[in-house]
Amino acid sequence: MHRTKIRIVEDALDANNTIARANREDFDGHGVTVVNFMSAPGAGKTTLLESVLGDLPGVRAGVLEGDVQGSYDADRLAALHVPVTQLNTDPGFGGECHLDANMVRSALGELALAELDLLVVENVGNLVCPAEFRVGEDARVMVSSVTEGEDKPLKYPLMFRTCELVLINKIDLLEHLDFDLDLFLHHLDAVHPGVERMLVSARTGAGVAGFRDWLANLAQRRRVPA
Amino acid sequence: MHRTKIRIVEDALDANNTIARANREDFDGHGVTVVNFMSAPGAGKTTLLESVLGDLPGVRAGVLEGDVQGSYDADRLAALHVPVTQLNTDPGFGGECHLDANMVRSALGELALAELDLLVVENVGNLVCPAEFRVGEDARVMVSSVTEGEDKPLKYPLMFRTCELVLINKIDLLEHLDFDLDLFLHHLDAVHPGVERMLVSARTGAGVAGFRDWLANLAQRRRVPA
Repeated sequence: MHRTKIRIVEDALDANNTIARANREDFDGHGVTVVNFMSAPGAGKTTLLESVLGDLPGVRAGVLEGDVQGSYDADRLAALHVPVTQLNTDPGFGGECHLDANMVRSALGELALAELDLLVVENVGNLVCPAEFRVGEDARVMVSSVTEGEDKPLKYPLMFRTCELVLINKIDLLEHLDFDLDLFLHHLDAVHPGVERMLVSARTGAGVAGFRDWLANLAQRRRVPA
Repeated sequence: MHRTKIRIVEDALDANNTIARANREDFDGHGVTVVNFMSAPGAGKTTLLESVLGDLPGVRAGVLEGDVQGSYDADRLAALHVPVTQLNTDPGFGGECHLDANMVRSALGELALAELDLLVVENVGNLVCPAEFRVGEDARVMVSSVTEGEDKPLKYPLMFRTCELVLINKIDLLEHLDFDLDLFLHHLDAVHPGVERMLVSARTGAGVAGFRDWLANLAQRRRVPA
């Protein structure tokens, strides 16, 4: 019985990986770099994207916006004059707490891939399941807000372990919190030793230029002929 | 095809509700009031429980602690000398992002129900799936931190709509944030008109006595003979 259950889970993730590879081929075919952007609810994903996407020199950026329902974040990002496509997990998929490769695939027809260099997939706010499902991304970026506490890498290790960049957001609030940054970094290195990290504040703009450069470099690296 | 998919989802939730009713009967049989305690990661559930559970006059409280892995919160709460049982969703259930009725049922044997008046089930930090699964609770309490932004009731309506009490936490930080409390309350009333709400700070203790009284009243109401 136990063996059967494990096999079913593996099959579901296998199917997801198969579709993620198909997505990746489509992205590769159009030279589009894809970032899977993840965090807990309210960590500041959308505000960070507002800070960087309108000002990425030489990079044509777009957003695939994942939410259970509504289009609040997509409406905010559309004001930047970047193409935004909304993907709701509620009506079609039963209120899923994450995006998977098939949901992203269902949106490919809406994305003008030929007109993009960079696609940011803003995932559903959740530190558990989004980490389990590849969607065809080149890189994973997660946002952890200092208001969430130092223990988050230990409690949600898969998320922290599978990303290429950790943005530590809301550092403007550090002086008003009991948050121990050294302890957080110690926990981060315990689950993902040496992972690239940046201290940022979407609100004040501190550190945001570093994230902008990181995205621009990632998108441009793709465009160097192999 | 579409019809079949919907039926499967309903069946899964039906099975959950059947088990939740069985849990409820066991809780009722022992006169235990059960609270399903939910929030996003880092909203302050454990710190709030630390503030109230050690000082509930006349109420024998216990905690069922749900986490993907680890026992960080359970270790913190055990220091209060209340019985704490850890339920990890990782090894047995494949890294689930929520507790369901069957997971809670699997822990019933570990809980000394005859020695409890109140059981707080601290759910996995997540604003989506925990709201979909009843576990046999008498009441649902959720925590929303003011650092998470005003839009959360609109983005995660099921969570806000299905709880009996909303604790608006970290109000000590209000003066350092751009958070518009009136707008948050407007959104809250849009998805759950008039739901009971309390402004609290687990860090300073502001408003926490109100939550303590609410829990004590809930537990005592159960013990009045029918």
